[in-house]
Amino acid sequence: MIVLNGGSSSGKSGIARCLQAVLPDRWLAFGVDTLIQAMPMSMHASDEGIEIAADGEVVIGPEFRALEAAWIEGIAAMARAGARVIVDEVFLGGAASQQRWQKALDGLPVLWVGVRCEGAVAAAREVARGDRVTGMAQSQAAVVHQGVVYDVEVDTTHAESLECARAIAARAR
Amino acid sequence: MIVLNGGSSSGKSGIARCLQAVLPDRWLAFGVDTLIQAMPMSMHASDEGIEIAADGEVVIGPEFRALEAAWIEGIAAMARAGARVIVDEVFLGGAASQQRWQKALDGLPVLWVGVRCEGAVAAAREVARGDRVTGMAQSQAAVVHQGVVYDVEVDTTHAESLECARAIAARAR
Amino acid sequence: MIVLNGGSSSGKSGIARCLQAVLPDRWLAFGVDTLIQAMPMSMHASDEGIEIAADGEVVIGPEFRALEAAWIEGIAAMARAGARVIVDEVFLGGAASQQRWQKALDGLPVLWVGVRCEGAVAAAREVARGDRVTGMAQSQAAVVHQGVVYDVEVDTTHAESLECARAIAARAR
Amino acid sequence: MIVLNGGSSSGKSGIARCLQAVLPDRWLAFGVDTLIQAMPMSMHASDEGIEIAADGEVVIGPEFRALEAAWIEGIAAMARAGARVIVDEVFLGGAASQQRWQKALDGLPVLWVGVRCEGAVAAAREVARGDRVTGMAQSQAAVVHQGVVYDVEVDTTHAESLECARAIAARAR
Repeated sequence: MIVLNGGSSSGKSGIARCLQAVLPDRWLAFGVDTLIQAMPMSMHASDEGIEIAADGEVVIGPEFRALEAAWIEGIAAMARAGARVIVDEVFLGGAASQQRWQKALDGLPVLWVGVRCEGAVAAAREVARGDRVTGMAQSQAAVVHQGVVYDVEVDTTHAESLECARAIAARAR
Repeated sequence: MIVLNGGSSSGKSGIARCLQAVLPDRWLAFGVDTLIQAMPMSMHASDEGIEIAADGEVVIGPEFRALEAAWIEGIAAMARAGARVIVDEVFLGGAASQQRWQKALDGLPVLWVGVRCEGAVAAAREVARGDRVTGMAQSQAAVVHQGVVYDVEVDTTHAESLECARAIAARAR
Repeated sequence: MIVLNGGSSSGKSGIARCLQAVLPDRWLAFGVDTLIQAMPMSMHASDEGIEIAADGEVVIGPEFRALEAAWIEGIAAMARAGARVIVDEVFLGGAASQQRWQKALDGLPVLWVGVRCEGAVAAAREVARGDRVTGMAQSQAAVVHQGVVYDVEVDTTHAESLECARAIAARAR
Repeated sequence: MIVLNGGSSSGKSGIARCLQAVLPDRWLAFGVDTLIQAMPMSMHASDEGIEIAADGEVVIGPEFRALEAAWIEGIAAMARAGARVIVDEVFLGGAASQQRWQKALDGLPVLWVGVRCEGAVAAAREVARGDRVTGMAQSQAAVVHQGVVYDVEVDTTHAESLECARAIAARAR
């Protein structure tokens, strides 16, 4: 398994797609967005689920955490059943978020990847995307890496997704 | 768990969203489309992966089957970890497809739901959607139900998704 | 030109796609959604632009009206330049909205089509779509037709989009 | 009006969204993708309409050209009616494509912007996007600029969309 962690608009999804293109085997790619889309509409913008404030701050409620725990178990089971899986994640809780995944992935070979991007550049890309609440990129840029331990780190501030993916793939072998 | 099976454009995704709205608890909803999106681009339109012919016929290759098997194990693990899960599926192999799911879901409470829709009506809805290869709806309408055993069956030919969801929810209790 | 008017989730876009499939010539299809997507992000959810309240009520500001007026002139110019154009619209202002279009389309052959759908059924379809604020369908179902004059009316409550499109196409000849 | 011309995956749409964010007035943004979405499904992948070969080459048919001519007239009419409009375009025919727009926009103040991106970098971004046929970016990178005359040129190879947009906005004043 490969777990990519980085803030909003840091380029994780692009790197995941490039990894699927450059890695020799067929890899499945899932992200926290897959989980959010699977949740009922009533959990979007609710204090039980996930709420995105006007300034881009993301607040996670207890119901979200409960479903997320099952989701993580499911992803781990896919890997145990033989699938190669890339996960792109936003560790809003830093080290505590990583520990949730580490516990579930216990015994599986995992490559932990930090995807960094300077806050100002991520914020500029957020404007260019036009589909995210302004402020998420800047507010998450540093906090998601606090206390997290990586096998590889890439920085998309000045490097293309494909270059970053090649660096990660080299380590995955 | 609730497993919805029906042909393309029979209305499964709409029923899944309505189920999430009418059921008392929070349910996750995944579909075969979630899996296809998670696969590498190279598996779309490839004979190892999934190929959709000009007439709408869908051909599944061995690599697709291998990743799908891991996906099914993962969904089962989410349910075992306590999540309520709705799956919308297209049993191209009829009874054989159902058996793959039955084996993985062994021991879990599952409601098997057949989502029927007359081929001509599903084909008309395919035109209105405008995002599917013409012919998929008609060719799958009957074949996906061959030999499949259900707890409930709904028919979207003359009923709205929300009505169908209410009938399913009544049985889910 | 063909102008389709109906409330949210009444089935206008599906009918437009079916019209493109059944009409003998090549028709362009635009909708109010095309215009909204073309606007700056800052006009979404702003009192200068377009605001959708929690109960689904839509409030249109003066900047939106100014850009909309230019948009309507542009669509009229496409038709005058020889394109066949289908427009799907939501006449929130009823007769006043129709007059804005009538003025711009002066001298062009136009088929005015009312797309009706019972409020309760449109509201049920809104739940099944899962991408609209709940309440828009119900609140718009009747009001958009107030004082509007049509050449043809269709009702999607019990008829498929393709049937409605065939009825409209028969009148378009 | 601002007309952005560049190859596939050169970053035009991102620049257009950034321009909408940094320019003082409200600008509408349309692209060739808006036109393609407005066309009937039957024109996608047809030799009358638009066809994208397996290697990413794009072939445009006579019906596409006819509807495009009306589309260009319509955009010009929006600008004449007072709207500020950003267009993002792919001048597959180079200078000939620009002349089609110049003729329609005659008398209007237009800022012509070249959006360059090294072919290899655009091709890498195409992989990261994952929603374009591989090869379009590389094959269009140079050809779309042949014989085209600009007021400003930006290069996204090493600059962010927002920086490019600021440079364009400075010239637009």
